[in-house]
Amino acid sequence: MKKPDPFPFAKRVPPVAQTGAAQATSSSHVIPLSYGTPTSDAFPYESLVEAATASILREGRDSLQYAGAGGPRSVQEWIAKRSSLRSIHVQADQVLVTYGSQQAIDFAARTLLEPGDHVWVEAPTYFGAVGIFRTSEAVLTSFPMDGDGLRVELIEVALYHARQSGLPLPKLLYCLPNFHNPGGISLSLERRKRLAELAYEFNFFILEDDAYTELTFTEERLPSLYSLAPERTIYLSTFSKIIAPGIRLGWAIAAKEVVARLNSFMHGSRASVFAQEIVSQLLHTIDFDEHVQALISRYRKSRDAMIEAINDSFGTEVAYHVPEGGFFIWLTFPEEVDTAQFVRDAYERGVSFIAGSDFFVEREGGRHARLSYSYSGPEQIRQGVKLFADAYYAYRGKL
Amino acid sequence: MKKPDPFPFAKRVPPVAQTGAAQATSSSHVIPLSYGTPTSDAFPYESLVEAATASILREGRDSLQYAGAGGPRSVQEWIAKRSSLRSIHVQADQVLVTYGSQQAIDFAARTLLEPGDHVWVEAPTYFGAVGIFRTSEAVLTSFPMDGDGLRVELIEVALYHARQSGLPLPKLLYCLPNFHNPGGISLSLERRKRLAELAYEFNFFILEDDAYTELTFTEERLPSLYSLAPERTIYLSTFSKIIAPGIRLGWAIAAKEVVARLNSFMHGSRASVFAQEIVSQLLHTIDFDEHVQALISRYRKSRDAMIEAINDSFGTEVAYHVPEGGFFIWLTFPEEVDTAQFVRDAYERGVSFIAGSDFFVEREGGRHARLSYSYSGPEQIRQGVKLFADAYYAYRGKL
Repeated sequence: MKKPDPFPFAKRVPPVAQTGAAQATSSSHVIPLSYGTPTSDAFPYESLVEAATASILREGRDSLQYAGAGGPRSVQEWIAKRSSLRSIHVQADQVLVTYGSQQAIDFAARTLLEPGDHVWVEAPTYFGAVGIFRTSEAVLTSFPMDGDGLRVELIEVALYHARQSGLPLPKLLYCLPNFHNPGGISLSLERRKRLAELAYEFNFFILEDDAYTELTFTEERLPSLYSLAPERTIYLSTFSKIIAPGIRLGWAIAAKEVVARLNSFMHGSRASVFAQEIVSQLLHTIDFDEHVQALISRYRKSRDAMIEAINDSFGTEVAYHVPEGGFFIWLTFPEEVDTAQFVRDAYERGVSFIAGSDFFVEREGGRHARLSYSYSGPEQIRQGVKLFADAYYAYRGKL
Repeated sequence: MKKPDPFPFAKRVPPVAQTGAAQATSSSHVIPLSYGTPTSDAFPYESLVEAATASILREGRDSLQYAGAGGPRSVQEWIAKRSSLRSIHVQADQVLVTYGSQQAIDFAARTLLEPGDHVWVEAPTYFGAVGIFRTSEAVLTSFPMDGDGLRVELIEVALYHARQSGLPLPKLLYCLPNFHNPGGISLSLERRKRLAELAYEFNFFILEDDAYTELTFTEERLPSLYSLAPERTIYLSTFSKIIAPGIRLGWAIAAKEVVARLNSFMHGSRASVFAQEIVSQLLHTIDFDEHVQALISRYRKSRDAMIEAINDSFGTEVAYHVPEGGFFIWLTFPEEVDTAQFVRDAYERGVSFIAGSDFFVEREGGRHARLSYSYSGPEQIRQGVKLFADAYYAYRGKL
């Protein structure tokens, strides 16, 4: 047979492979300060074995089938109840369990966006979400942040300006209000309220990505954007950071009619009912509050070790915001720096990090770098930051 | 705040909920002859506990992380090797593991189709795929089958006619060549070869759904369409029917450049690496050939029981093809029958089935019904078919 002509693949397929933790080059010789990978030390191994065994032997006739046993319902109920920590008061059927919150972002994009629709994001923002919005052929515009999070006053000006000038308004605004990835910053209460009002007034959806919500180093828990604009917010979170990423379960919370639309992309299926059964069994076995407290204590120590190491290595050469939760420290170097220029050298010296430009739609943030303190312990972190500093000073010609 | 205006959701969102096994109404009083649910009797419970325990305790530091341990690679390799049964000889990286083959259908549709593109399907066909193509805003056309499967000569005529008349050609043809769902029929070798040639000549992709490939009651294994048109076929299969649906793992096999495009919809993630680790451990523990032989023997007995029961209850009132594999018997009643008219009564009498019209794009096949012999044992099947016949004769006014 003759070779067929080139095939006209759909335009939405991205031209290049995307980065993501699953594709991370890993080497046991490299200290990983790049991805938001939780520590393997804190996985509840024994309880997971117990939960998996019960899911198979006691519930397996149903949990291994298409529809599952009681797990999916019980997980929805747990999430609904737990979400009251962020002032979310919903019924269990307002919770859609997905394969990680990434799938929920994908479903949200497909539910809300036609090709060419406008999506507004923060600068910097999470590159995983940007990749998904690009697959949806959205037009992306980014807005800067300061120490109180996204500068909502600039969003407001842009919205009024767009309305007056007949420019396109956004259908969706993607926001990471707590322990921002990568910024480490939380959005102030006042700005949350204003953003919620704007969503109603200009009829756009807020996609609220709250993956790190449980991992807070302070007692303060600001209300979610969902609680302030329930009809125009899709709230996302995940078990990846609090149980284990390999389980691959996250969730979306939204108004019932929105959940029904998101769910249509499940095409009559459900996120792994077996994994949900395991999570359900686990949540009924462990003391979850105690488990989370242990995680918080571990991550706080790691954060403190990283900050100390940064201060030791860089002094006033770098600026950062001390994160009050989450996994990341966001570094700001002098204006002329481009951290992408020494990613490779750092890797060869034995440490990985992510260059700032990866977090910007226009790739303008070269002077930044994201360091994650989530995977490694304090000693490794100190060593990793030292190697990172070596690579930086070599790049700057100051070694 | 004032209520926002109605939101202009994306057109691709289907207006109504789709049917699917996960949403099946189940009741312990009803004999399920509706969905393609494998029997719970044959799940490898003990081996699964062993596999899950090893995945957690031995491999958990990696298998519970984003990238996983060795499981994903080992599963790819197993699939690549096993696929030689259907004359498929590929490298492991031509295998993309997905959340069930449904997700692979979704990725294929998004990779190949722009809104308004044409997809050709069989009549009847699997409703799950139709739902996904509709979400992709495809235009669907269906072509009839006979005892040798899809009538490829009609496809050929339609292709030449379309080309000559400047009508739209299909970008994708969706086909279930082995133990067709719902038809129970396999596509003849001669037609496979012709279809493969047409895919090259007219530059469309074949989406080859081969979910039931392992469950054959004869020794004959026709070569896959993939083996005949490797550059223009995406081959799909699944662990749902041979291990367990709740594990939610299926796969696509395609040319490398196509796999890369499909994979872009994983957005840097992977189908549950933990579930893949469990499957990998399981496949290295059990005697897979023996396991499959036990399944085949069970399903053959159930098929025979169903055929006997159909003959007893219906005699010449109904026509069917004896399936040589898979899960389904496809019944053809006299022309004036509409089986959708007695689905509810049958359910109330204690048996579920799926009306023929659910398997047609234009919902024209009302005289058909699909019965599944996969979940229930012989005694239940006999009882179920009896109740089904009661409902049928009551509908026909012959009781």
